[in-house]
Amino acid sequence: MKQYIEKNKERFFEELFSLLRIPSVSSSEANRPDMLRCAERLVQLLKEAGADEADVYPTEGHPVVFGQKIIDPSLPTVLVYGHYDVQPVDPIELWKSDPFEPEIRDGAIYARGANDDKGQLFMHIKAFEFMVSENRLRHNVKFILEGEEEIGSPSLAEWAEKNKELLAADIILVSDTTMISESVPSINCGMRGLSYVEVKVTGPNKDLHSGHYGGAVANPINVLCDMISSLIDKDGHITVKGFYDDVVELSAEDRAKLARAPFDIDEYKRFLDINEVKGEKGYTTLERTGIRPCLDVNGIWGGYTGEGAKTVLPSEAHAKISMRLVPDQDSRTITRLFEEHFKSIAPDYVKVEVVPHHGGDGFLIPISSKAYQAASKAMTEVYGIEPVPSRGGGSIPILADLQRILGIDPLLMGFGLERDTIHSPNESYLLKQLFAGMESIALFYQLF
Amino acid sequence: MKQYIEKNKERFFEELFSLLRIPSVSSSEANRPDMLRCAERLVQLLKEAGADEADVYPTEGHPVVFGQKIIDPSLPTVLVYGHYDVQPVDPIELWKSDPFEPEIRDGAIYARGANDDKGQLFMHIKAFEFMVSENRLRHNVKFILEGEEEIGSPSLAEWAEKNKELLAADIILVSDTTMISESVPSINCGMRGLSYVEVKVTGPNKDLHSGHYGGAVANPINVLCDMISSLIDKDGHITVKGFYDDVVELSAEDRAKLARAPFDIDEYKRFLDINEVKGEKGYTTLERTGIRPCLDVNGIWGGYTGEGAKTVLPSEAHAKISMRLVPDQDSRTITRLFEEHFKSIAPDYVKVEVVPHHGGDGFLIPISSKAYQAASKAMTEVYGIEPVPSRGGGSIPILADLQRILGIDPLLMGFGLERDTIHSPNESYLLKQLFAGMESIALFYQLF
Repeated sequence: MKQYIEKNKERFFEELFSLLRIPSVSSSEANRPDMLRCAERLVQLLKEAGADEADVYPTEGHPVVFGQKIIDPSLPTVLVYGHYDVQPVDPIELWKSDPFEPEIRDGAIYARGANDDKGQLFMHIKAFEFMVSENRLRHNVKFILEGEEEIGSPSLAEWAEKNKELLAADIILVSDTTMISESVPSINCGMRGLSYVEVKVTGPNKDLHSGHYGGAVANPINVLCDMISSLIDKDGHITVKGFYDDVVELSAEDRAKLARAPFDIDEYKRFLDINEVKGEKGYTTLERTGIRPCLDVNGIWGGYTGEGAKTVLPSEAHAKISMRLVPDQDSRTITRLFEEHFKSIAPDYVKVEVVPHHGGDGFLIPISSKAYQAASKAMTEVYGIEPVPSRGGGSIPILADLQRILGIDPLLMGFGLERDTIHSPNESYLLKQLFAGMESIALFYQLF
Repeated sequence: MKQYIEKNKERFFEELFSLLRIPSVSSSEANRPDMLRCAERLVQLLKEAGADEADVYPTEGHPVVFGQKIIDPSLPTVLVYGHYDVQPVDPIELWKSDPFEPEIRDGAIYARGANDDKGQLFMHIKAFEFMVSENRLRHNVKFILEGEEEIGSPSLAEWAEKNKELLAADIILVSDTTMISESVPSINCGMRGLSYVEVKVTGPNKDLHSGHYGGAVANPINVLCDMISSLIDKDGHITVKGFYDDVVELSAEDRAKLARAPFDIDEYKRFLDINEVKGEKGYTTLERTGIRPCLDVNGIWGGYTGEGAKTVLPSEAHAKISMRLVPDQDSRTITRLFEEHFKSIAPDYVKVEVVPHHGGDGFLIPISSKAYQAASKAMTEVYGIEPVPSRGGGSIPILADLQRILGIDPLLMGFGLERDTIHSPNESYLLKQLFAGMESIALFYQLF
């Protein structure tokens, strides 16, 4: 594969850049036509790579791309999952180059989606192309590429239910996560679930002059701050009633295994430029993001946020709040518990609304599985070190759904790095990782 | 004056509307040319009304308009203060008509500035015009109209220091406040001061994926909420150290006098559509806005605030926070105390910045003064009821400055009503109040 990459590098860049140039922001209505364009481009790339068939399938939301090459129905089948939609680019002013005009700087591609997930799914298309061109493919390969991962995959589960046979496979292969570091390859064997809600606190029915009413009428921003502040106690525990009821406590042995992953707290703090980490009492930083749930405000707004000063006592205050979940927390249950709790703590002098956004459950993959073992060997050969099994803090809720609907396990071979700052300005993807990913995936096919 | 109004009504509307059509938003850089246009239009209106001289005076910020008519230097002089700048119009989508295209609906003018303060200062120009045209003026009249009231009058105090002689007068007459209600005229004899700051809480040096870091790294929005929540205790007391040190406690007698102002708590709650009022324990609603200081968040923002969901753990969170002050709190001292306190409560895992915006001290006017008595008689004649002395919750910090610099008291004859929703969408001004104000001011000149 190394030589194949060397020979085709320029074409690879051109092809990947053609995907990155399409602003496929799934949360934005204005980008709806771009979603279709991106899906169609993927169909083209899949066919050129050697798929027997590839098509755009409409859903109620953004379209799904499905393509496959069936060598022999009796052979094992790998189902590759990826997503072609990307996160919004705000705050746009912090980008050093246009998020939708990819640029190679210092050995990395800079663009929205360079890693998450256009760059990572592209590795699969190219590893597949290599296997086909060398006539070395000994398995069937299917691709399911969706356009709604960043908004919680509202359509894919239903589509998968209706197309179970089309998607039938032995393993779901996914590259949409990170490794511990460049020198410490790792394979994710678990991900956290997600519950995401939007809340609105309404005080008076109109914006008021804070001089005339200040001190006598509850300010919804102050009230929202009080309510949010009360959601986490001083030990970092979430106060939502019943929140921890289904959390599986890890054994001392399992915690010891996880603690083997190399982690330098000083480097971590330096990377983030923080003096101290902060989290739930009694757990390490890796445990806090791997095996423990958490609650974060992802956005807050209310009142006057422009230039200068405006003395307004606003009518409304808003926040987006998400909770990361661990086995066996159920996303729907947690969303309901949050809504009940948040309404129960609302004081008399305001009205409160809670609107659920997307959610999804977490999952765990057995390390003993054939697929995990093949991935581990492939990465050991490419990186020269055996990858560490890790637990991912993020959420790919649709994978838990696909696991349930199709009855097959997902395997998360992610080649992203922390430095890639996905979801943030200046998202990037190291060329070294892009190519090592392609090699590892091609090797996986040979070892599986 | 009644007949004069009837005869000239249409011209009055045209003239006032020509002022209201100019988007003189002082906090917006983009509107800088409009500020000058508005000042020039005022000069024209002052001259047409009978001023001997009127001019635009540049300052480091927006220009000042000064005009005067000197009958006889030995006669008493009234200095009229007003401001031609207006608040921003956000949220623009809640306006029923264009904020800068005035419209008369249901007996009121709807436009940004209809009341605050273009409508109210216009009454003075027309009362002056009437007195001149009828040759009934027995005092000298000066006008000082600034363009920076809504941003804390950063230039006027310095300009007044340099032009003390030009501004020399016996009373500062101001219409920039409200009356208790249409049927209960009132004269403000005190205003609260203001301290206004902007705070920024910084966590990690970049926006992070909340799945990868959530639970392990302090989220600056959550921290800002904690910090804001801690600024007011459960009894409604502000926790900033030293905050109440200089607050003058009113005697039981004075509190009883204030309590005579008619006030219907049920109507108040109905008007605001709230179930309960909220404020400092041990004080009534009128006391909470009149004689007690308070703290409000005027704006808050951070993280993702767009459509849909984004799982970001943001780098920064911001808020605009203002405190209303009462005698003898010093605005600069309070701003310093706030900054010290806010920094002292910042946890290790974030960085905090506090930037002061404008501020100003409160003041009190003796009810026994000649000017108060003349105003009271004038309003009694126009409204048929003696006006109630009241304490205003808002702040016109520059008035405390002018009082100190020029050594003269301000008198606040305000004709606004609560229903005018100044600083909010659909600001309006009742025609009835516009005309009653003109009559009261003209009578004031005859009685002073």
